[in-house]
Amino acid sequence: MKFVTEVKTFAAICTGVIGSGWVARALAHGLDVVAWDPAPGAEAVLRQRVANAWPALEKQGLAPGAAQERLSFAESIEACVRDADFIQESAPEVLALKLDLHAKISAAARPDVLIGSSTSGLLPSEFYADSVSPQRCVVGHPFNPVYLLPLVEVVGGEKTAPEAVQAAMQVYTAIGMRALHVRKEVPGFIADRLLEALWREALHLINDGVATTGEIDDAIRFGAGLRWSFMGTFLTYTLAGGDAGMRHFMNQFGPALKLPWTYLEAPELTEGLIDSVVEGTAAQQGERSIAELERYRDDCLIAVQEAIRQTKVKHGFDFAE
Amino acid sequence: MKFVTEVKTFAAICTGVIGSGWVARALAHGLDVVAWDPAPGAEAVLRQRVANAWPALEKQGLAPGAAQERLSFAESIEACVRDADFIQESAPEVLALKLDLHAKISAAARPDVLIGSSTSGLLPSEFYADSVSPQRCVVGHPFNPVYLLPLVEVVGGEKTAPEAVQAAMQVYTAIGMRALHVRKEVPGFIADRLLEALWREALHLINDGVATTGEIDDAIRFGAGLRWSFMGTFLTYTLAGGDAGMRHFMNQFGPALKLPWTYLEAPELTEGLIDSVVEGTAAQQGERSIAELERYRDDCLIAVQEAIRQTKVKHGFDFAE
Repeated sequence: MKFVTEVKTFAAICTGVIGSGWVARALAHGLDVVAWDPAPGAEAVLRQRVANAWPALEKQGLAPGAAQERLSFAESIEACVRDADFIQESAPEVLALKLDLHAKISAAARPDVLIGSSTSGLLPSEFYADSVSPQRCVVGHPFNPVYLLPLVEVVGGEKTAPEAVQAAMQVYTAIGMRALHVRKEVPGFIADRLLEALWREALHLINDGVATTGEIDDAIRFGAGLRWSFMGTFLTYTLAGGDAGMRHFMNQFGPALKLPWTYLEAPELTEGLIDSVVEGTAAQQGERSIAELERYRDDCLIAVQEAIRQTKVKHGFDFAE
Repeated sequence: MKFVTEVKTFAAICTGVIGSGWVARALAHGLDVVAWDPAPGAEAVLRQRVANAWPALEKQGLAPGAAQERLSFAESIEACVRDADFIQESAPEVLALKLDLHAKISAAARPDVLIGSSTSGLLPSEFYADSVSPQRCVVGHPFNPVYLLPLVEVVGGEKTAPEAVQAAMQVYTAIGMRALHVRKEVPGFIADRLLEALWREALHLINDGVATTGEIDDAIRFGAGLRWSFMGTFLTYTLAGGDAGMRHFMNQFGPALKLPWTYLEAPELTEGLIDSVVEGTAAQQGERSIAELERYRDDCLIAVQEAIRQTKVKHGFDFAE
């Protein structure tokens, strides 16, 4: 099965904060963009949002020929998607609405044109149920601000062709994104499950009177948040485990999983789970030594903190702010 | 009550990864450091760890007179702490061990010298129970690598004087840290509760076969992790709420808290909880407009990503690595 991956015209269905972010990103990468949104005054709001994002995109570097003027606004779904080479839907998270929208979008689009949905809360097998040629329908879940954050989670539904997932990842990569294939169709996908766990624990901390919102934010951004900008928890812990290795680390810190440190109950630390973690982190480490990765981590931490310091100075923030 | 905050000599009790990190940080800030650790060969390992950290600390900028040679190794706890102006203990997380250590440390130290513990898992009211002058005893919980990450959580126990918490925060700030007062003595304090919630959810994702360790790390470091290096979840969501405000955002996203997106059950979203979030984020926002904060966020995201890109090039990593 072949899908269109040479994208000249990008269609954006619904242009709230997320949809506008897609429009700005696609324009900055030199595409023509056609947008549609049924809200009164949506076009003006969209153009304002793109204009607000543009200075940042200029700083990052525009593709040749990229211009805000290459955005046009369509009067109907059909007019929006008819000539598009890729379609991204960012409508409100209401199942009935998305079912209806995608029936219309897919009927009007060429059958080999990929359709992505920005949904974070709904499952593709459900909201693509009434779509024409559902094999080309995927989720492409981005993160705010879409025009600057690279991550996009790509998820197929029951009827999605594996080739469509690969083709969509190719298109997203071409507009500067880091596409992550979510291989199992689970609620929240991967990133939001992690974010939501932290968010819910944070709400408990507020609710229990332990900390304010500002203290919770500080506890992240002056500590683990600095690491997370370039290294995830598993590789970080692999470094912490040092030459003794990740299996030793897991066995050593396993007991902490039983402690009442969060409202979330950990899974049983079986040999199978430990094996998966050890194999996964070994693959992440690859041929690099722990010492090499430590030097990389340290250089990243210095560079990231210096980048933030300079930006704070520029915007009149103190170090501690 | 007055405590010593003019620190010339910093004592480090136990010099594993965390203790060594304290030593490196204190040396880089121009202090004399006296260390003690009962493990055979501990001094050589410590000096090697400090030497490994030194190039990074040089890049960040050393204080006048800072030198690795200003580290000396003591033969006993008493010799280590006797003349110290501040004492930091980073022993293994075993209650009986810490009780015994702190009885000895506090008996040998001058009574107005502050004692900090790097513990993440134990509570100060418990392990300082046998200490002399317990009013000067606090937790100062750092994050790895201690010589580069600024966050330190400062926690008092039942007998800790409020002035000691303030004095310890002053000392930590003087060695380049961002001290966060944890006002309630709860297991895991603030940061580790948040980190642990994410970590446990991540282990569930592995256990359920949803994702590999590498995919989970990617889901953070190419998305929310980039934001978290300079902005926590609450201020991020305040921006996402836009001009409609945080109360609107909370009411709108409240239902998602009931969704099975994580293994963690959220607290009931009462009016009181919403009020706390709205008041907290209003204080964080201060006089700045949402548009101003968005520009700050965007500039940080660009600068941080560019800093990471350059570091990847330097270390021979691809963008996607």
